[in-house]
Amino acid sequence: METQFSSALLESAVTEISRLPGIGRKTALRLALHLLRRDEREAVALGQSIIDLRKGISYCSVCHNISDTDECAICASPLRDHTTVCVVENVRDVMSFEATGQYRGVYHVLGGLISPVDGVGPDMLQIDSLVERVAAGGITEVILALSATMEGDTTNFYISRRLGQFAGLTLTRLARGMSVGNEIEYTDELTLGRSLMERVPYEQ
Amino acid sequence: METQFSSALLESAVTEISRLPGIGRKTALRLALHLLRRDEREAVALGQSIIDLRKGISYCSVCHNISDTDECAICASPLRDHTTVCVVENVRDVMSFEATGQYRGVYHVLGGLISPVDGVGPDMLQIDSLVERVAAGGITEVILALSATMEGDTTNFYISRRLGQFAGLTLTRLARGMSVGNEIEYTDELTLGRSLMERVPYEQ
Repeated sequence: METQFSSALLESAVTEISRLPGIGRKTALRLALHLLRRDEREAVALGQSIIDLRKGISYCSVCHNISDTDECAICASPLRDHTTVCVVENVRDVMSFEATGQYRGVYHVLGGLISPVDGVGPDMLQIDSLVERVAAGGITEVILALSATMEGDTTNFYISRRLGQFAGLTLTRLARGMSVGNEIEYTDELTLGRSLMERVPYEQ
Repeated sequence: METQFSSALLESAVTEISRLPGIGRKTALRLALHLLRRDEREAVALGQSIIDLRKGISYCSVCHNISDTDECAICASPLRDHTTVCVVENVRDVMSFEATGQYRGVYHVLGGLISPVDGVGPDMLQIDSLVERVAAGGITEVILALSATMEGDTTNFYISRRLGQFAGLTLTRLARGMSVGNEIEYTDELTLGRSLMERVPYEQ
C-alpha cells in the first residue's frame, strides 16, 4: 500500500479495481473518485453487472464461445454454414471475425494457445472437443485462424497433426502478408518476405 | 453499439465498464474477459466493493474529505496543526499533499473549482463552509493550494475576496516555478518567467 486512504471503503474499492490488468493504484483511485461523483445508480449498475457477468456466464456447448444459452446464436443459426469451422484463440477473436462481415461459417474457441513457456499444454485447450466435432462428421473445412506468433504456429501444427487422420477434410490457415493500406517502406521484412512467398495471381 | 456480443450479460458489463472515464468499449471488453478468466471471488469482490463504496461513502463534516467517520482522521487528530488550513480542489489533492510528508496542518476540500464554462459556480463548492470555519476562529493561515490554471486562479481570487474580511488571517498560495529536477532548457517560458518573478534569496 503506497497511499493511506482516509476511508476503508475507498481503500477496498481501489485495491480491487487495481487488480485489473493495466490499471495501477493511481488510475484505480481516479476511477473510484469518478464513481463517487456520479449518480449512485450508475455505480451500483457497474458493480452489479460485474457480479452478474461472473456468476451468470456460460459457454456454448458446441463452440465454447460465451453464450447465455446452451448453444450460442451462431451455432444455433440455420443461416450459418456449419460445414466450415474457424478455429480461434478466444472470444474476442470471434468478435473480430464477426466484425469483418466476411465469414458465414461457425467457430471453435480454443480458450488459449499452446505455450510451454506459460505452462499451457494442449489438454488445457478445447482441442479434444474440436477433434470430436470433426469426427462427428459434417465438417469439410477447418480454418486455423490463430495469431502469427510462435504459440499460434505451435498450436496450428499440433491441431493439423490431430486432424490429419480425417480424409476429405480441408485444413486452411489465414493468409499472411501486408496489412491493407500499408506502404512497402513501413512493412517489416518478415511480413514483406511472407507476402512475397504467398503471392497470388493478379486479377483485374 | 459497435459490436454485437453473444451474451447479454457480457453486453451489460461492457456497457457499464465503458462508462468509466478513459475506458472505451475495447478496453471494457478486455477487462470483462479478464474477469471471466479469474476466480469468481475476485470479480464479486470488485463488483461489491464498488457498490459498497458508492452506497456507504460519507464525508468529513469539517473538511469534506472522504471519511468513514463523521470527522476524518486528520481533523480529529490532536497531532495536526488546526490553525493552518490547506484549501484543495478534491480528495485526491489531499492525498498528494499527505504523500509529501511536509504538511502538518488540516485541509478544506472544495469539491471542484469555479468554472463558468462548465457551469460550476461558487455556491456549488464548499466555500461558504470554509468562510464559516474561519469565522468560527482559531485559524491563522489559509493556504490556497489549487491548480495553476484559469479555474484555480479564479477560485483563488474569489476565496481571497471572501476571506479578506478577517483581520489577522494570513492568506498564502503555493509557489510557482520550476519543477524539482527540471532543466531550464525543457521548462516552458510561462513557468520560467514565473520562477524568475517569484525568485527567493539564495541560502547556502
